[in-house]
Amino acid sequence: MRATVMFGAGDVRIENVPDARLIEPTDALVVVTRAAICGSDLWPYKSMEHSVTGRRMGHEFIGVVETVGADVRYVKVGDVVVAPFLYSDGTCVFCREGLNTSCLHGGQWGLDRVDGGQGEAVRVPQADGTLVVLPVGADDALMPSLLTLSDVMATGHHAAVAAKVGPGRTAAVVGDGAVGLCGVIAARRLGAEQIILLGRHPDRIALARAFGATDVVSERGEEAVERVRELTDGFGAHSVLECVGYEQSMVTALSIARPGGAVGRVGVPQEQSIPEAVPTFFNNVTVSGGVAPARAYIEELLPDVLEGRIEPGRVFDRVASLDEVPDGYRAMNEREAIKVMVRP
Amino acid sequence: MRATVMFGAGDVRIENVPDARLIEPTDALVVVTRAAICGSDLWPYKSMEHSVTGRRMGHEFIGVVETVGADVRYVKVGDVVVAPFLYSDGTCVFCREGLNTSCLHGGQWGLDRVDGGQGEAVRVPQADGTLVVLPVGADDALMPSLLTLSDVMATGHHAAVAAKVGPGRTAAVVGDGAVGLCGVIAARRLGAEQIILLGRHPDRIALARAFGATDVVSERGEEAVERVRELTDGFGAHSVLECVGYEQSMVTALSIARPGGAVGRVGVPQEQSIPEAVPTFFNNVTVSGGVAPARAYIEELLPDVLEGRIEPGRVFDRVASLDEVPDGYRAMNEREAIKVMVRP
Repeated sequence: MRATVMFGAGDVRIENVPDARLIEPTDALVVVTRAAICGSDLWPYKSMEHSVTGRRMGHEFIGVVETVGADVRYVKVGDVVVAPFLYSDGTCVFCREGLNTSCLHGGQWGLDRVDGGQGEAVRVPQADGTLVVLPVGADDALMPSLLTLSDVMATGHHAAVAAKVGPGRTAAVVGDGAVGLCGVIAARRLGAEQIILLGRHPDRIALARAFGATDVVSERGEEAVERVRELTDGFGAHSVLECVGYEQSMVTALSIARPGGAVGRVGVPQEQSIPEAVPTFFNNVTVSGGVAPARAYIEELLPDVLEGRIEPGRVFDRVASLDEVPDGYRAMNEREAIKVMVRP
Repeated sequence: MRATVMFGAGDVRIENVPDARLIEPTDALVVVTRAAICGSDLWPYKSMEHSVTGRRMGHEFIGVVETVGADVRYVKVGDVVVAPFLYSDGTCVFCREGLNTSCLHGGQWGLDRVDGGQGEAVRVPQADGTLVVLPVGADDALMPSLLTLSDVMATGHHAAVAAKVGPGRTAAVVGDGAVGLCGVIAARRLGAEQIILLGRHPDRIALARAFGATDVVSERGEEAVERVRELTDGFGAHSVLECVGYEQSMVTALSIARPGGAVGRVGVPQEQSIPEAVPTFFNNVTVSGGVAPARAYIEELLPDVLEGRIEPGRVFDRVASLDEVPDGYRAMNEREAIKVMVRP
């Protein structure tokens, strides 16, 4: 079958790889109908060292179940399913607590003989725990929004939950990428009264406003902090969603949090430490979040997508065939596209 | 009047200073009957540069109100009162949220013509907001425990609240100083099932066990992390109370937190950044806490002290007159004493 392989920074190719097939009795084989390129795929795209064997890519996908292993009980052949960006058994102590990202038997797509999502098919381990059956056809018009439940919408929601967004609170979203934009949707969905987007790109700002952002701050660094303070009676935001991961964006996020407020971080940290240890201590600012347990959030978010109350699929502004995936990486890396949907 | 002044590292003296007196109409004048030396006083005791004018010391005290300003309504002459370690107006937006440490009109003892607690008397700004009247006489046997409400017991409680201690959860307390010991009391009070103290001093360990610690880990660094994991089914503690403030203690605290767990930090951070940004991200470990809003906690903790359900005053293992305060600093710094109570 054909699948996306990254061989180094800037070097993404569509290769012939061994056909996906069942290995464990808890596996399902899913033929991919939609996949996506993630902002986090751009980290290796910028920096990966050359590899002869390469790395299978893609962790967001929807597909149709083609076969299931002997121990798979709930997922059936023919089901249209969405996969979260990590697989998990759904039964371990962490899954039962809703922290499927720490599943004792879970793991990542594209490693250890598990396929990546940016390809024709995927062997899905722990199929019953991992997959969520969608009550729609494989070509439903809602596919873009349903696909965001794999990662970006769940991640934006995680940022908002970790930042304790709630009715009447002020939220600030650092980053206008697809996750930040979904963070705006999540903040509005959870009742934030004021939603301040920190971003600089006109197309993304327009989308953020459509999603519910009430204010936009396009300054950076200390100027951005001042602007947010001006917009919040001088105090800062109750809830800050850090959707980038750079040290500077984290400094900004921590600096615009109101005393007693919380920063929900979902941008993969590019540094080994969290800055601003002392001012956050004296201001009692909480730092929460991390890798989003998307699997645990899908049930909560799915009805809102199915009933059209949220439209996170609008973050996709380009569609690519499998052959066009390498150019999709380039376009996202050059900020020509916000997020690329793949139709293998 | 006489009061404690620090002139540099290791140089604490009892000096004649201007008598405390009312300045603002919202002030009260309190004659100090009990004060304390704090673990945080040892930071400047170790490192303060020489100062000609010196720095007034002490932020934990109980006393009797001698006079009140014209605008003081609730606090009366003759009241026995406890002061939290920061003063606050009790009416601003942050005080109403229970975050008196961020009071818009609050501040620190010993600065800006406000006296320190380790002296004969104190001008108390924002008296109505700051002071809590105690329903006991000035020489009540409960004085040691009541005095801990100024700081250490409230701070231990803050660590436990920030670390989300609750019934059935596992708590680990990093540090066996007075705050750590109060953290053990707080963790038990909030229902923790297992309480692991990380500490090395036999006298403190004995007290921790009396306060409810179920396990003690005296190893350090990676060995301590391994021991805590062994005691917690391999996962770590749900709630970790960081009661030291050094980078190494924070690394340990973050490393023994269970995925999805929380670290409540109350040790004043001695570094500019919080370590372990990446593993805490992938484990969804929350970092919360900071300077404890003692004023907001006193009403909650006071009944438990008055009715003898908690005895945090047992952390005081030495009593000093004002003249003996310099030796009290030395004794605490050399770990000869856990915590020193001062009777001016």
